[in-house]
Amino acid sequence: MDPKTVRTSQKAGLPPGTLVHVGEKRSEMVRISVMHFDADTFEEKELTSPEECANYLKSPRVTWINVDGLHDVEVIEKLGTYYDLHPLLMEDILHTIQRPKAEDFEKHIFMVVKMLCLGGDEGRIDSEQVSMVLGADYVLTFQEKRGDVFDPIRNRLRSGKGRIRKMGADYLAYALIDAIVDSYFSVLESLGERVEELEEAVVGTPEREVLMRVYALKRDLISLRRSVWPLRELISSIERSESTLVKAGTLLYLRDVYDHTIQVMDTIEANREVVAGMVEVYLSSLSNRMNDVMKVLTIIATIFIPLTFIAGVYGMNFAYMPELEWPPAYFAVLALMAAIAVVMLALFKKRRWL
Amino acid sequence: MDPKTVRTSQKAGLPPGTLVHVGEKRSEMVRISVMHFDADTFEEKELTSPEECANYLKSPRVTWINVDGLHDVEVIEKLGTYYDLHPLLMEDILHTIQRPKAEDFEKHIFMVVKMLCLGGDEGRIDSEQVSMVLGADYVLTFQEKRGDVFDPIRNRLRSGKGRIRKMGADYLAYALIDAIVDSYFSVLESLGERVEELEEAVVGTPEREVLMRVYALKRDLISLRRSVWPLRELISSIERSESTLVKAGTLLYLRDVYDHTIQVMDTIEANREVVAGMVEVYLSSLSNRMNDVMKVLTIIATIFIPLTFIAGVYGMNFAYMPELEWPPAYFAVLALMAAIAVVMLALFKKRRWL
Amino acid sequence: MDPKTVRTSQKAGLPPGTLVHVGEKRSEMVRISVMHFDADTFEEKELTSPEECANYLKSPRVTWINVDGLHDVEVIEKLGTYYDLHPLLMEDILHTIQRPKAEDFEKHIFMVVKMLCLGGDEGRIDSEQVSMVLGADYVLTFQEKRGDVFDPIRNRLRSGKGRIRKMGADYLAYALIDAIVDSYFSVLESLGERVEELEEAVVGTPEREVLMRVYALKRDLISLRRSVWPLRELISSIERSESTLVKAGTLLYLRDVYDHTIQVMDTIEANREVVAGMVEVYLSSLSNRMNDVMKVLTIIATIFIPLTFIAGVYGMNFAYMPELEWPPAYFAVLALMAAIAVVMLALFKKRRWL
Amino acid sequence: MDPKTVRTSQKAGLPPGTLVHVGEKRSEMVRISVMHFDADTFEEKELTSPEECANYLKSPRVTWINVDGLHDVEVIEKLGTYYDLHPLLMEDILHTIQRPKAEDFEKHIFMVVKMLCLGGDEGRIDSEQVSMVLGADYVLTFQEKRGDVFDPIRNRLRSGKGRIRKMGADYLAYALIDAIVDSYFSVLESLGERVEELEEAVVGTPEREVLMRVYALKRDLISLRRSVWPLRELISSIERSESTLVKAGTLLYLRDVYDHTIQVMDTIEANREVVAGMVEVYLSSLSNRMNDVMKVLTIIATIFIPLTFIAGVYGMNFAYMPELEWPPAYFAVLALMAAIAVVMLALFKKRRWL
Amino acid sequence: MDPKTVRTSQKAGLPPGTLVHVGEKRSEMVRISVMHFDADTFEEKELTSPEECANYLKSPRVTWINVDGLHDVEVIEKLGTYYDLHPLLMEDILHTIQRPKAEDFEKHIFMVVKMLCLGGDEGRIDSEQVSMVLGADYVLTFQEKRGDVFDPIRNRLRSGKGRIRKMGADYLAYALIDAIVDSYFSVLESLGERVEELEEAVVGTPEREVLMRVYALKRDLISLRRSVWPLRELISSIERSESTLVKAGTLLYLRDVYDHTIQVMDTIEANREVVAGMVEVYLSSLSNRMNDVMKVLTIIATIFIPLTFIAGVYGMNFAYMPELEWPPAYFAVLALMAAIAVVMLALFKKRRWL
Repeated sequence: MDPKTVRTSQKAGLPPGTLVHVGEKRSEMVRISVMHFDADTFEEKELTSPEECANYLKSPRVTWINVDGLHDVEVIEKLGTYYDLHPLLMEDILHTIQRPKAEDFEKHIFMVVKMLCLGGDEGRIDSEQVSMVLGADYVLTFQEKRGDVFDPIRNRLRSGKGRIRKMGADYLAYALIDAIVDSYFSVLESLGERVEELEEAVVGTPEREVLMRVYALKRDLISLRRSVWPLRELISSIERSESTLVKAGTLLYLRDVYDHTIQVMDTIEANREVVAGMVEVYLSSLSNRMNDVMKVLTIIATIFIPLTFIAGVYGMNFAYMPELEWPPAYFAVLALMAAIAVVMLALFKKRRWL
Repeated sequence: MDPKTVRTSQKAGLPPGTLVHVGEKRSEMVRISVMHFDADTFEEKELTSPEECANYLKSPRVTWINVDGLHDVEVIEKLGTYYDLHPLLMEDILHTIQRPKAEDFEKHIFMVVKMLCLGGDEGRIDSEQVSMVLGADYVLTFQEKRGDVFDPIRNRLRSGKGRIRKMGADYLAYALIDAIVDSYFSVLESLGERVEELEEAVVGTPEREVLMRVYALKRDLISLRRSVWPLRELISSIERSESTLVKAGTLLYLRDVYDHTIQVMDTIEANREVVAGMVEVYLSSLSNRMNDVMKVLTIIATIFIPLTFIAGVYGMNFAYMPELEWPPAYFAVLALMAAIAVVMLALFKKRRWL
Repeated sequence: MDPKTVRTSQKAGLPPGTLVHVGEKRSEMVRISVMHFDADTFEEKELTSPEECANYLKSPRVTWINVDGLHDVEVIEKLGTYYDLHPLLMEDILHTIQRPKAEDFEKHIFMVVKMLCLGGDEGRIDSEQVSMVLGADYVLTFQEKRGDVFDPIRNRLRSGKGRIRKMGADYLAYALIDAIVDSYFSVLESLGERVEELEEAVVGTPEREVLMRVYALKRDLISLRRSVWPLRELISSIERSESTLVKAGTLLYLRDVYDHTIQVMDTIEANREVVAGMVEVYLSSLSNRMNDVMKVLTIIATIFIPLTFIAGVYGMNFAYMPELEWPPAYFAVLALMAAIAVVMLALFKKRRWL
Repeated sequence: MDPKTVRTSQKAGLPPGTLVHVGEKRSEMVRISVMHFDADTFEEKELTSPEECANYLKSPRVTWINVDGLHDVEVIEKLGTYYDLHPLLMEDILHTIQRPKAEDFEKHIFMVVKMLCLGGDEGRIDSEQVSMVLGADYVLTFQEKRGDVFDPIRNRLRSGKGRIRKMGADYLAYALIDAIVDSYFSVLESLGERVEELEEAVVGTPEREVLMRVYALKRDLISLRRSVWPLRELISSIERSESTLVKAGTLLYLRDVYDHTIQVMDTIEANREVVAGMVEVYLSSLSNRMNDVMKVLTIIATIFIPLTFIAGVYGMNFAYMPELEWPPAYFAVLALMAAIAVVMLALFKKRRWL
Repeated sequence: MDPKTVRTSQKAGLPPGTLVHVGEKRSEMVRISVMHFDADTFEEKELTSPEECANYLKSPRVTWINVDGLHDVEVIEKLGTYYDLHPLLMEDILHTIQRPKAEDFEKHIFMVVKMLCLGGDEGRIDSEQVSMVLGADYVLTFQEKRGDVFDPIRNRLRSGKGRIRKMGADYLAYALIDAIVDSYFSVLESLGERVEELEEAVVGTPEREVLMRVYALKRDLISLRRSVWPLRELISSIERSESTLVKAGTLLYLRDVYDHTIQVMDTIEANREVVAGMVEVYLSSLSNRMNDVMKVLTIIATIFIPLTFIAGVYGMNFAYMPELEWPPAYFAVLALMAAIAVVMLALFKKRRWL
């Protein structure tokens, strides 16, 4: 999720529509799994080759084909042939640094969204591109790697509970997007915890390492916003497209996802304002520390410098210094020094430096 | 009202429309109270079970059903059945971290607003979600807990004074929103007092604790804005919806609430600019303090360092130092030292350091 | 004009349209004055009771009724009855913390503007709400207190010079708004002078008090903007309303006022940018001062610390220190010390610290 | 071009359309010059009185009347009578602090633009208001004083080269605006040079005077933007007005001026970002300087303070101090002192303070 | 790509449409190369004079004429005659500081884009203006100098692979723009590397030179944005123009380029936010350094100042100082001094200054 890792020059110069996988290379096998259902029947299968998809093309039931892994370009190409996908659409599936967007190709709607999950250590956020093709009675999903947030949906499909098997492909697509947006909330929660931790750290221990963590958090918020913000537009553009692929009933649900997206954005923005304030607190903590250091130096120095001067005076070797001969002089001078120190400390106390 | 407390991952993965209460858990009984009236009659009752609502369904009079407490999901569900509420609508009622919004379900308009009140200590702001369903002749309101800002409206209904009993359900809904917006003004007042207090504190005592209070205030202003800002949109969307549920006469009153909302926003923005300036003042106070400390150190040091040097010179043990033998030398040196100190002080005075 | 003084909780809970005066309480008598004119005739009168207004209701001439003082709610109510004012309109007249706005009530247009004038001391800005009702052949104006910027218009009406008596009520309303906008320019002028003064003060004497004045100025600019900015919208909404109350010829004049408003906004914004820069200059002045203090300390300390060390060395009491016996040693050491001081000073000169 | 010099309170209270010259007062004679031409003929004349303009009113050729000097209000009034100018239009001509704008009066289009040129010293920018009235076959231009950027256009008219004599009044008006926008580029160039100079100064000599020059530059950029920005709107409003006074062919040329305006704005904005960065560089230069001063103080102090302490120890007068009697002790102590100094210096070197 | 180098005053005063080359002067020969093709045939030729272009005018195949070098104004003029280019269009081709834009001249569409490539040293960005004229069956491209990013397209044309030879001139124009946008990604990559380098440098070595590099990077990002941002508008304006020159199929591809442009903008904005944070980190690094210096000074000074004072006391020459005679006094005092030092160090450790 680093803004710096946009490395698409690998593709520069190739003709548009050339299918090249741009993203992290993986070696696992590409996995194709199918769910084929209507209100009454349900079938689940893992395909060994993309050719098997052909069986589902003419079925009146809803088909959900999920592809895990994009490095085998041929798989995408074959699916593309069966489902008549535009070369630019396939290119976008493989090009995993897309911005979330929706495009209406009449026969089907193409959507790109970002699925976020928390990385193992230090709460770093992992981002994975999920491309979706929504047709009249099918949904194709393409993920970069195995592991996703769709298991609750799979379970609902298997159990046949709720609306999901009764409604069409558009409702399934909605449910998938909804699952992804729901997962943003847990990412936000973890970011919220980091914000809380840092708020304390920034006041208690204004070390450079804390500042670095503040900036890391800030950058995570920026990238999170980059994933979430275009979702609003995505949903609006589906609403506006008036595509017959999305039924009126489903639009209401999409509107609900839209509201969630706004809520996520709202929380991100609020966190960003908090984080922006943190840098100021950090800098003022630094200044405060400097002030503390200066105060100690000043107190010590201003007390002892005059005393040392007095000692210096009576260390002079003049032949005629009457005080030196006065027997109690030494103790008188010591008393004078103590008095000066006490007065000084009282002054500092009054100025609230102690 | 903390941006960090968006904790909805409790719901992640559940099918949409699942009724789960998201928010602070409470143990009080859910209370359902009904007001049933027209210009001439008025009836007030506390219901023991949601089933009793059925009695009011076919009445030509206006019915206001208020529910205090959302943790008993069944109550909401039953009301939902009587009044034909969409599952997503009921989900939103229970999900108490909604952003204020209005949705037109044709049969009724659904509205979510935030009711703010001042917490007991330190002027913290408590936020409570109020959901409203406005139908042709009924208003349903759902609150998280007992205690609200609607008592003046109840009294007006009971006494039958003013327009409120003569006009329909839409006017009642307007009156409720108006009461909530009015309550924002008292919250603003309390914030205004905190702003005034802090403005003095920031100049007088630039301690870290003051900065923390400035940031707390800033955050309260951000959350206040998050509650108020979407209200504008809410009212505009009702106006634009051209729903037959809201009569032309009531629109004029809604426009008035709209103006109040703008006024609240205006005051929030003005306060935010003032608070933004406070941080700068705080930082410059810190710098000023540092300057003061430095000045004292510099004055003490620059006066005594040269004097100590002179004392050091006459403390040297050279065999041949002619001054040492000159009888008035000691007093001459003391006089010289005093003269140097006076000149220094005069210079500092001139530079305005004293 | 302080953002903090929005104190409307006095009204919270009252039914909308309740007539309560919100604003500074005054004890003067409410004054009602009438001007009644057409191109050829002119009549001016001070009314003793609002009932006398009835005389002017059916007249074909233009009537201007001006009310100074809002604390006598009955006066407003009676006028409201004669001129058929909506309760919300009357509420807005009494509620003196309105944002400038225009509302079209078909029979008449209601406008709220802010009249600004310079307070007696330190150039503080006083703000007063002026509400206007423009009907087919009358203009009602409501002011919080006596004293306004309309005298030149009264004089033009009395003398019958210029267009003002020949044109209708809409031109009179325009002329009143124009007079108010013109008065903003003199407020701006006074602010401009304060900007100039502060620009010098901020460089010359970076004291806290100067910073406080910078922030006071900043806040005055914010409130000024709050009075002026909505005026643009006010005029646009009149233009868009296509009300028959405003004739085409007058629209051209309104457009002119609109241009003036933009000019005022422009100057406010430019001043705000200048003031924003001032805080930076102030902070850099503080830093500069600190630098100066540090330099003096460093110069004194770095010159005398080595010299004092040398004096310390020859103050040691070792039995065998050959230099001590060498007769010219004392003078040699003094010369060495002088040389060191000269070299140091030369170095500082080179580094431009002197 | 100072935001503070908006002094229009001279006019406050006068009826709209009153002709009063607002601006710098001048004593030169008002000069009226006429160019009268079509593709084949060309006539140039300096008029002695505005009455002579009447000769050109009915001519089928294009007439360009240029007025230098606005202080003689009668001249403007007479021209206004001949060309049927609206009183508000004439008022705007005389009121030289207009914002650039275009207004369509059907018979003619009125435009106000700002002509900028570099003042004699220190690259200050002089601003002069040029008002234009574009009719079917005439262009009137009003300038505050003699001297403008229109000489190349006059020469093209005299020589009859290019399109300018063949096309109508609208093309002439375009050519005049184009000449003014072209002159902005040379102003930008001079500002660019000041930016370059200051970029070096801010790093090399972080003196207050440099900061003052940075702010002067910033303010010049603000005022430049205030002259240029409204030009976009001016041109758009002419395009949108669909006035028959501007032919389709000329619109293409206006579009070209529009592009230039955007280019000027772009460069201004880029320069503003550079200047904003300068203040940060300046402040960091100040900090750097402080750091340098502190380092010298610290190095000197930390080396000599321990040494002085050692000297002090052996300056003590205890009766029994065995080291004092040891003959090589003095030299051993000197060696120890040297060793300490060397170690300290090495440490500082390691910390990169030297 | 420096905002300061807008030097167009060379042209000020010339009539619009005058063909003068504004930009860096070059001495190479202007090179004109032609590609002439349809799906089956392909011809490539380097022309020796612009007159040869006439041969391609009436051909039904697609013609791509590329001109490298703009300093020979005659070449442009002749091409302009053959292809009926508007004088303003030709002026824009020669004026190489255009903002990217598209203009619809009905017969053809004129586009200006910026081609960026990395300069030899230090990753500076070179910008070159590419002007394109898209007609029914021809594309004209004008570049400032030889060397471009179009070689992959030339190779695809030569080999006849892919769509490019089968589709019309509009697809060729799209392919050229796509190649330019693709090249932005490699520029972004190089900027990303500079960002990474500087992120480390800013923490490790807060030297002025690092700050200068941060500002250079910031300025490069600003200029990059200035090249990319208007491209969005360019593509939208082509889409909106509904020109028959661009076929529906090609619009889909243009939409794809549009998405890439947004992606580039997104990455630029993210990098800008990172760079903005760097300045803060740099300033806090400076503060940290200062703190470190202060701490060392304070530790050394606060330890030795009291010790030196004690030594001074026992260096006084009073006749009666009982401690001096006590034999172990010297060692007792040394022990006391050591104890004081140890306590001080322990205190500093506790305060975390060590």
